[in-house]
Amino acid sequence: MSVKVISVLENILQANDQIAAENRARLDAAGVYAINLMSAPGAGKTALIEQTLRALTPQVRIGMINGDTTAASMDAERGAQAGAMAVHINTGGNCHLEAHMVRQALSALDLSTLDLLIVENVGNLVCPAGWDLGTHARVMIASVTEGDDKPYKYPSMYRAADVLILNKIDLLPYLQFNLDYYLRGVRLLKPEIQVFQVSCRTGEGISAWIDWLRECVSSKRLT
Amino acid sequence: MSVKVISVLENILQANDQIAAENRARLDAAGVYAINLMSAPGAGKTALIEQTLRALTPQVRIGMINGDTTAASMDAERGAQAGAMAVHINTGGNCHLEAHMVRQALSALDLSTLDLLIVENVGNLVCPAGWDLGTHARVMIASVTEGDDKPYKYPSMYRAADVLILNKIDLLPYLQFNLDYYLRGVRLLKPEIQVFQVSCRTGEGISAWIDWLRECVSSKRLT
Repeated sequence: MSVKVISVLENILQANDQIAAENRARLDAAGVYAINLMSAPGAGKTALIEQTLRALTPQVRIGMINGDTTAASMDAERGAQAGAMAVHINTGGNCHLEAHMVRQALSALDLSTLDLLIVENVGNLVCPAGWDLGTHARVMIASVTEGDDKPYKYPSMYRAADVLILNKIDLLPYLQFNLDYYLRGVRLLKPEIQVFQVSCRTGEGISAWIDWLRECVSSKRLT
Repeated sequence: MSVKVISVLENILQANDQIAAENRARLDAAGVYAINLMSAPGAGKTALIEQTLRALTPQVRIGMINGDTTAASMDAERGAQAGAMAVHINTGGNCHLEAHMVRQALSALDLSTLDLLIVENVGNLVCPAGWDLGTHARVMIASVTEGDDKPYKYPSMYRAADVLILNKIDLLPYLQFNLDYYLRGVRLLKPEIQVFQVSCRTGEGISAWIDWLRECVSSKRLT
């Protein structure tokens, strides 16, 4: 039975990649830079989005697509309150976003009015890694409270990420977290990964992330 | 295409439930009480197992099955060091354990020498919820660092759990975590759920969990 499942899955992944390429072409044509934000539950995706909106709005016009396994649109509402045009996707229990879901959400947004699109994936450190959504960068948020062994235990996600945001560093004094051991694991999996150490609560380190993102958005506008 | 996928998935889930029932019958025949331990990455599954082994060994003879998406057997080794007979399952990237994987692992254990079996699932707050492994109780660990909105955002897992262990309560003074709001969400989804508030680091609250588990193991021995 497992062979049958894999072959179905392979077809689905191929179809997904094709739709992802179409999504990316659509974003490129509109001059919109898009990121796919992935993390374990509670690592701080929505808090980072709030910080990002606060720093970049209104100079950068931001849209947001939030994936959730249910109809609970709390994250989309938090984003909308912070000034983004937000679309909520209910995955119907599915543990990750897929390109066709993002395609539908794109049609609900007026891309000509946007510079940056943030896609907030379902909180999951395993499944979202395998699915291209058509964004330009995959940004992973990890929080130090998850423990310093996570790169060694969830290699697919760390390998899939272009950017790693290590969040909740304000809690480091209260944890046994070996930063060297953690970063060694990260670099083993993805030597070229861009790492930002931040606290979304205190704002520490956020400006470096914002500078990086602003630069990406500007480059996309020029091309 | 989605209809095809669902029908394949339904067949797989039916097959899974049948194997789960066989696993449970095998455990019952051997008088072994089994729990399926589920959580988001880094919530403290392995730390709880270490605390549990420390409290119950050698009076209770404990076996352990650890699911990981890779060949990294760090958790199984931590369990073995703490005194358990441990079997590591590499899911090959799969985001949750399934009953047939546990069946294979059961064959690697001598059940006649065990009283309690702890199955440590892959760290994931979405997918493991749907898969019965043949255990007697589903125990979910949540950590306060994940945020107080998690029951509202990951209802399937909270609904699937028989027992909830709320971990890392030693960090509450440093977080904005509304315990009332959190527990209200939990009780809405599963009114009869058993909740233990603990800190695996300080040991606070662990004894109530241990008493509950010891009672379950004793009942299974008598039946």
